[in-house]
Amino acid sequence: MSLNLEEYIASYQDFPKEGILFRDVTPIMKHPEAFKEVMRQFAEFARENNVNLIAGPESRGFIFGMPLAQELGVGFVPIRKPGKLPGELVSCKYDLEYGSNEIFMQKGSVEKGDRVLVVDDLLATGGTAKAAAKLIEELGGEVAGFAFVIELFGNGMEGKKVLSDYKVCSLLSLSDQ
Amino acid sequence: MSLNLEEYIASYQDFPKEGILFRDVTPIMKHPEAFKEVMRQFAEFARENNVNLIAGPESRGFIFGMPLAQELGVGFVPIRKPGKLPGELVSCKYDLEYGSNEIFMQKGSVEKGDRVLVVDDLLATGGTAKAAAKLIEELGGEVAGFAFVIELFGNGMEGKKVLSDYKVCSLLSLSDQ
Repeated sequence: MSLNLEEYIASYQDFPKEGILFRDVTPIMKHPEAFKEVMRQFAEFARENNVNLIAGPESRGFIFGMPLAQELGVGFVPIRKPGKLPGELVSCKYDLEYGSNEIFMQKGSVEKGDRVLVVDDLLATGGTAKAAAKLIEELGGEVAGFAFVIELFGNGMEGKKVLSDYKVCSLLSLSDQ
Repeated sequence: MSLNLEEYIASYQDFPKEGILFRDVTPIMKHPEAFKEVMRQFAEFARENNVNLIAGPESRGFIFGMPLAQELGVGFVPIRKPGKLPGELVSCKYDLEYGSNEIFMQKGSVEKGDRVLVVDDLLATGGTAKAAAKLIEELGGEVAGFAFVIELFGNGMEGKKVLSDYKVCSLLSLSDQ
């Protein structure tokens, strides 16, 4: 009795700009049985890799990361955009096609020896994921793996290569066009 | 055997700007037993009010809203900032102390007769919450209530008054100074 997750992905041509085929995970969020199936597969991967902490980038990483942490009975730490987190922070800048992004984590949010699973909805260029790994390692944690609902393939979608040093679980592999 | 949620709130003076005492819920996210207690109280309120759909504003509303939806076995719909959601949308603009914000929902994300619980970390001025209610009602849904981890009191923190037409559950009441 398996559920086809792909049926819960909506696709929008030319969003947010021309030439992009946007993969929308909101139908998964709307259907509890689909979301539960994502959690089941992510939890299996997390348990196999002895994860004791979940990290998720703002903001769709929050959607899939926090419920997974509850399912596993472990903590969740947010990875955020500039100006959002209080306290002492570590940060990592990374390049985008145009311009750059910077992400932040709180010092002390990861402890030495923590085995951290990074959760997000989508793996595309791998830029955010790689930056997240750098931050977790800077804080003394070990990146136990990455879990994505969708892995995009296509021109410039080098995420799998960028993360080749890590274990990666992705539930669907979809074209970016 | 009750857990004091207030011990899981960190406070930062002068963040994000001078004069503001920022209440940080990340320790709740880091401690699964504290997060579970939030879920327990939110779920009780949701069940009492026959909720069949959860909505959460970007991005801390995602953190508390999505796991609650899973706990209840109902769907979750995101309320987002400009440029984030694909498809046909409804939107609502509201005033801030300086400038304004606009939030968006997808058409069809709420159906006629849905009883929607709006979940967020913090009730302050009530601006976002009130705008969320307008959108849900525009889509034909009924706002069954609001659930917040923290309700702020202090100068201009009129959230409870702004939402006086609705049922509001807040787990902690804290000063904004």
